[in-house]
Amino acid sequence: MPSIAERWKVLSGQKKWEGLLDPLDLDLRRYIIHYGEMAQATYDTFNSEQASKYAGSSRYAKDTIFTRVGLDKGNPFKYRVTKYFYATSSTKLPDAFILKSWSREAWSKESNWIGFAAVATDEGKAALGRRDIVIAWRGTVMTLEWSNDFEFELVSAPDIFGAKSDVKVHLGWHSLYTSDDPRSPFNKASARNQVLTEVRRLVEQYKNEEISLTITGHSLGAAVGTLSAVDIVANGYNKPKGMPNKNLYVLRMRNATDVVLTYPMIGYSEVGEELRIDTSKSNYLKKPGTVKTIHALESYLHGVAGTHGSKGPFKLEVKRDISLVNKHLDCLKDDYCVPDAWWCDKHKGMVQLEDGAWELRDHEKDDF
Amino acid sequence: MPSIAERWKVLSGQKKWEGLLDPLDLDLRRYIIHYGEMAQATYDTFNSEQASKYAGSSRYAKDTIFTRVGLDKGNPFKYRVTKYFYATSSTKLPDAFILKSWSREAWSKESNWIGFAAVATDEGKAALGRRDIVIAWRGTVMTLEWSNDFEFELVSAPDIFGAKSDVKVHLGWHSLYTSDDPRSPFNKASARNQVLTEVRRLVEQYKNEEISLTITGHSLGAAVGTLSAVDIVANGYNKPKGMPNKNLYVLRMRNATDVVLTYPMIGYSEVGEELRIDTSKSNYLKKPGTVKTIHALESYLHGVAGTHGSKGPFKLEVKRDISLVNKHLDCLKDDYCVPDAWWCDKHKGMVQLEDGAWELRDHEKDDF
Repeated sequence: MPSIAERWKVLSGQKKWEGLLDPLDLDLRRYIIHYGEMAQATYDTFNSEQASKYAGSSRYAKDTIFTRVGLDKGNPFKYRVTKYFYATSSTKLPDAFILKSWSREAWSKESNWIGFAAVATDEGKAALGRRDIVIAWRGTVMTLEWSNDFEFELVSAPDIFGAKSDVKVHLGWHSLYTSDDPRSPFNKASARNQVLTEVRRLVEQYKNEEISLTITGHSLGAAVGTLSAVDIVANGYNKPKGMPNKNLYVLRMRNATDVVLTYPMIGYSEVGEELRIDTSKSNYLKKPGTVKTIHALESYLHGVAGTHGSKGPFKLEVKRDISLVNKHLDCLKDDYCVPDAWWCDKHKGMVQLEDGAWELRDHEKDDF
Repeated sequence: MPSIAERWKVLSGQKKWEGLLDPLDLDLRRYIIHYGEMAQATYDTFNSEQASKYAGSSRYAKDTIFTRVGLDKGNPFKYRVTKYFYATSSTKLPDAFILKSWSREAWSKESNWIGFAAVATDEGKAALGRRDIVIAWRGTVMTLEWSNDFEFELVSAPDIFGAKSDVKVHLGWHSLYTSDDPRSPFNKASARNQVLTEVRRLVEQYKNEEISLTITGHSLGAAVGTLSAVDIVANGYNKPKGMPNKNLYVLRMRNATDVVLTYPMIGYSEVGEELRIDTSKSNYLKKPGTVKTIHALESYLHGVAGTHGSKGPFKLEVKRDISLVNKHLDCLKDDYCVPDAWWCDKHKGMVQLEDGAWELRDHEKDDF
């Protein structure tokens, strides 16, 4: 991917994606898909099985996650995860925000795994053109249920924007982002503090290299990621100490018929640009789709691979495996002969012991 | 299991299970569970994924099936599979009888895998007291749909009972059992002929040892299994050539609230005895259950492990893992923290190739 290594600044929005969005630049397709896949990894590793005592955590450990979620083979963009993040909420939020285990021996009573920080390896840096730091935020697993019973109350956020700002943010996003809980082994510090601390550490560690900070997320992860991106830049965490601040570039994606939310992918920019796709034009997908299939991140990535603008046809330009859209849902037409919702561990993590009994082992041990 | 090795004749019904059923004899519990698990193996290996070109076949090969379905570890009753059986139907039957792949490259257009023959190994023979030959018949995957749109027409069966018999059998069972198809690689011979040929072969092979022939099946598998058992005995396939015929003993099981069918387990006897269980008494299972959960074979086996007659309580006497009832359905109370429907291959058989693409590989190669 030499062209991506050379063009990464414009691909990250230095010129606000001018002239790259329609028609959609081939490198930019690959670039967006790459960061979308980093967000997708947060879904694919998330343990949403409430019968598990590890419900709400990451199934896979930091060392193995990219291999386990299928982002190693055939992928030149190599990263290593440096930190997992956890969130809690001081406000009572619907289950979709904080998923609770049914087990009395749950790994945590109040926290959920909410994302990760990763840094390009030397090999990844060669493909990416710089030492990229990614912060990936997990979205909600359930997409719509919560919006019915959840008020979209707004609060001010002096912690992020200063006491004099009149910017207001969503109560739920803000609570997830900033809440801590002194009793919690995972949230003595808020998600915000965990992320800011890790970003500062990494930016200092690589201060003698050319670096970038890319924040990615889908759905709830896009909302909190946007908040976090603004926070990082507004409070100067994206630069080594004593250096001038860098810019923030925001790219948001919207599927034409998605009624839920938009998917922003954030580089460093000051304003948000929007890339529109329309997966209803894809002949690979079942028509008309459902609220869930249209909103799913994998559908968006399929859309990025094939969109040709609002007037153009749908034609895949990036060889992205169509079976991926069926990972968690039933999106693909039956003709393609891919099982629906095929993303599952063997026996959902049930493992047979030597005496023949079965035990749920659906969690890889890891430090925080 | 020395007591089973010594008592196998009475456990197989030599005295029509007199005095063993209420209260249910502990060895007999284990014995029934053992043969029930052989029938369960046919469900657990069956590929019911219509997106797969192997829909309707066995996922696992003859050499690996017992390991794959969890019947190796902790199980003293060792067998090896000697033959897989396939069925077709000359009558148009509902999908539940012959499951069809959506793929144009389907492994077969007209046949389904319908069960296996297995023979006790020397180690298994020691635990079982004799060289046991098992014929296991697969049941339907969908339990009730077909009964709505399927007429229970009866036909005579001169092939089985002779031209002068006025015995009549179910059109569907009989068609599955006796149909062949000269175009079919798997059903040039009918299921009946495949089974009779294999039984004759095995009975001859072990004619100098003490042998037994045990036929097991659940639901549709019980119906066809009964037909086959009668056929085998009526036509003398259960004895070496020139030896006197042996007897047929039939044990049927009925869950009190099961509205679908009964579960016969067949040894060699002339009439059927019935063992009643009532899983609605089990405190492990969700109440009141559904038509499917009450009919499921795993629920029956749980019932055998815990029944204490119509007036007694439900109390597990055999240490059979309760998580097994959740293999294909949502039977177990949530308190036990076992995922529902956990029986699945990793990623439903989707495997990532070296270039990053995914391919469905959900079939172990095997000869017939």
